[in-house]
This record gives sequence, C-alpha cells and structure tokens, in this order.
Amino acid sequence: MVAVRLRLRVAYDGTGFSGWAVQPARRTVAGELTAALGRLFGPVTGLTVAGRTDAGVHATGQVCHLDVPDEQWQRVATARGTGEPDPTVLVRRLAGVLPPDVRVPGVEVVDDRFDARFSALRRHYRYRITDDPAGPPPLRRFDTLGWPRPLAHDAMAAAAPGLLGEHDFAAYCRRKPDATTIRELQRLDVSRAGDGVIGVAVSADAFCQAMVRSLVGALLAVGEGRRPVDWPASLLTRSDRASEVTVAPAHGLTLVGVDYPADPAQWSSRDAATRRRRDG
Amino acid sequence: MVAVRLRLRVAYDGTGFSGWAVQPARRTVAGELTAALGRLFGPVTGLTVAGRTDAGVHATGQVCHLDVPDEQWQRVATARGTGEPDPTVLVRRLAGVLPPDVRVPGVEVVDDRFDARFSALRRHYRYRITDDPAGPPPLRRFDTLGWPRPLAHDAMAAAAPGLLGEHDFAAYCRRKPDATTIRELQRLDVSRAGDGVIGVAVSADAFCQAMVRSLVGALLAVGEGRRPVDWPASLLTRSDRASEVTVAPAHGLTLVGVDYPADPAQWSSRDAATRRRRDG
Repeated sequence: MVAVRLRLRVAYDGTGFSGWAVQPARRTVAGELTAALGRLFGPVTGLTVAGRTDAGVHATGQVCHLDVPDEQWQRVATARGTGEPDPTVLVRRLAGVLPPDVRVPGVEVVDDRFDARFSALRRHYRYRITDDPAGPPPLRRFDTLGWPRPLAHDAMAAAAPGLLGEHDFAAYCRRKPDATTIRELQRLDVSRAGDGVIGVAVSADAFCQAMVRSLVGALLAVGEGRRPVDWPASLLTRSDRASEVTVAPAHGLTLVGVDYPADPAQWSSRDAATRRRRDG
Repeated sequence: MVAVRLRLRVAYDGTGFSGWAVQPARRTVAGELTAALGRLFGPVTGLTVAGRTDAGVHATGQVCHLDVPDEQWQRVATARGTGEPDPTVLVRRLAGVLPPDVRVPGVEVVDDRFDARFSALRRHYRYRITDDPAGPPPLRRFDTLGWPRPLAHDAMAAAAPGLLGEHDFAAYCRRKPDATTIRELQRLDVSRAGDGVIGVAVSADAFCQAMVRSLVGALLAVGEGRRPVDWPASLLTRSDRASEVTVAPAHGLTLVGVDYPADPAQWSSRDAATRRRRDG
C-alpha cells in the first residue's frame, strides 16, 4: 500500500478526558480522535503522539502523526470539483465529526521520516495559577488553578533559574523502572500578568511523567513562603522521587507546542540514547 | 437602620444561566448572587445592576450595588481578631458560597449616591469570533463564536466608523414600547489577534436590548461579503428594527467593564433624559 503520513496539530480541553492514551471504557483524546479519523478514512491504527498528557491536562499545540492509504487520502481530502487533495478539507471534515472539546486546527502531509514522538526537539507547557481571593475567573476556571493564599511570584521566579539545564530530575518524576530521568530544562519562567494570573512557562527536550506539575508544586511551596528560594534546585541531588514535592493539579496545565527540526533529514537522525528520553 | 452601600464587581460564565435577571424556576446570575449574599447577610433586596445581560452572555466586569445593614456588614466583613470590616473578607467569604461560574472579585463600600445603573457613564463589551475551519479553540469555545466561512476582518473594521456617534439605533434594537433607542456609540473596533480570533470591542453610554449582538450581526454580513461596507451605517435611518440584521449568538459576548465618574458628586447628577437610556 502507498501511504501518506499526516502530521496533525491537536487542541483539547482536558476536563472531560481521562488523558490522551486510549483506555478501555474511558473517554480519552486519542480515543475520540481515532474514532473521528475512522469515520472519514475507515479504521486507523498507529496514531503516535508527541506527549501523552495525563487526565485533565489540556493542549493547544499537541502534535501527532499517522499513516493513511493514499487512496483514502485522495478520497477524503479532495474537495468536490478539484483534482488535488487539500489538508484544509480534512481540517473542516474533522471539525464536523469531532466533539467540541477536541479540535484539529492543523494538518500537513509530511515525509515519512517524521515521527511526532521521536523527531521532537522540545515540548512547551504553560501552567496558570491565580491567588485572587475571589478564585479563578469563571471563563478560565477550567484551565486556571485557584490558590487560596497569596503567592510571591517574584520568589517563585527567583527559584526557577537553579533548575535550568541538564539534570537528573528523579526528585520530580513519577518512578518508572529502567527509564532515565535525565532531562534538559530549557525554560522555566514565572510571571504575573495584568489580570493577576501567574503563568509558568516550561520547556524541555522531554518531560518524565508529572514533571511539569511537580516543578510547579515546588515553586508553589516557595511562593507561599513554606520553602526557601533555593529548595527546588536542592532536590536535584536526589536519586528518587521527593515525597515533599506536591504534584500540582492537572487542570492548570496546557501543552502549548512541540518543536521539530526544520530539516526533514534530521527527523530520523536522533541517536538511540536521546530517543529513550523522548517520552513526552 | 443605618445601611452600608456596597459596590460589587461581578464575573460570570453565562453558559449555565438564563441571563442576569431573576426569573421563576430559572438559574440566573442575580438569583445565585442574591442567594449567596443572603447566606452571609440574611435576606437581601434591592440588588441593582449596570447592565442586565441576556441568557448566555458572559461578564468579566459587571457592576451592581446593594445596601446591607451596618450591623450585618460589621459582622460579616470583620476578620476574627481585627476591629475593622475589610471588603477583602467579603470577597473571600463570597468565594466560599458562590458556584464556580460566578465570582465577585471586587467589593467597595461607596457613598449612597452611587447607583450601579444610573451613575454609569458607559459600558464596554467584547465579542469573540473565529473563522478557523477547525472551529473554536476548545478552552475558549464557551466565549467564542465559530463562523463556518472566512471573514474579511478588514471590511468589518471599515464598516465600523460609520456607526460611531449619537444615533437612533432603532434598527439595532429589540422593540420596547416608549423607550428611546438613541444611544451614543463611542467605540467599535474590529481586529484579528495573533491566534486568528476576531475581537470586536464595543463601548457606548448605554445599549438597548440585543444592540451589541445586532451590530456584530451586521458586521458579520459585511465580513462574509454578503453586504457592502456602508450597509450597517445605512440602517441608522430606520425607525424600526431591521429584520435583515441577524442577532449574533449570545455566547460570543462578554460585558468587560462599566465606567463611573470619579467624583461621587456626579453619581446622582445625571439628568432624567439621560437616565432613561441607562438601561444597560
């Protein structure tokens, strides 16, 4: 079979989902997306994602790929009266069959060296927190954590640089046997916007499970004044999960984007050691 | 009774409400707010609002006022161990008794010349529209209208200035016997943000019912190319509702703020003719 590889950008409100990955009898993003693609293309397999988000986590810029037979691609994506398949036709048709809490705002036909997971250079997340005594703004309550006590965002920002760089983030990872917990944290910025909402921007080559939410949990302890500014970085000496670090709730977290090399020749050239980390 | 007048800033997600105004057997914002205030102060009456929003319309900066007996104010708003009542104590206590789709992020004790409706100088609204073929972003789907065809936002922007100023907006108003439909439209800006969402910012001294949504409906006809750029302004000659103007759906609309004179002496000095218009 001649196949076409499709790269999809996916956005979702994680509120109503048990995470990305398909699970029996649970509503999941991959489950809904596979069903919608199946209605258009017939049964699809091999949907591969850049970062498997946990239950309740949102995305504006998730990326996944899959292969569909060329014949099906032509049939589904060719608008009536034109000869050429057009990715925008698939965007529009998916909008008609997906539920409103999942959207596919981007479709591209890519070289088959592209792999949403293994070709990824880095993932970008945002976490939103408000310490307004009134609680989260109603229209953003599904993606903003309400914190009941005042937070010193400047202390949180001061704690961040000590975590940057390549480290063993074991203290911040849910234990997974035989998996490395070495990651390169490339960005950790804390800022308070005009509406008072504290945003934490986090980027790394990859993240182990619950890592962003654990980093935010440690920063929250600093922001409340329960821990000193140098405490989050001091945990990088641990070789095991630090039980003192609270995992911040899922609903404040959004996967906002995934970066890939511009040159397709680099899509499959990552060495195996690096690949092992690229679990999301 | 010695009373204290409170000015409240109110934010709500209109999705789950049959509008602001109390109606029997319907869930309304005023109903929820009155119930929450009642749990703290005992039965309250006389809640007066700047703009009675329709079913499904949201607010980030609605304003209302009410009077509570001074004795109750002291009891409810005085934090344990302090002598003085503090508005932030009420903000926090209201957060504990209100549902998550209504918040009161601001409380102020005001001079009793303040009237949320009659002292208001102008109201500010925003309308959000996306013409992305993928549909509204999942996390903003409750306050963003999805439009199924491409919109020329520059044409919409070009149509706006002709509507500015004091006019009889009868064409854009739901008929209400004996009420003037003369309003002063002070701002009507259309712009497309980086994420592709078209925002319409609308300000006036006051609005008649469905006026913002009718203005947006007329601009949408221009954006689609169904009507020429000068068509919305041409309707200002009508003395009755223009049936060709579609009322845009409620869920794209948010009341973002209400302006009042800084000087309390001006709060009750509006002349009666002006007052008649100040219905929201």
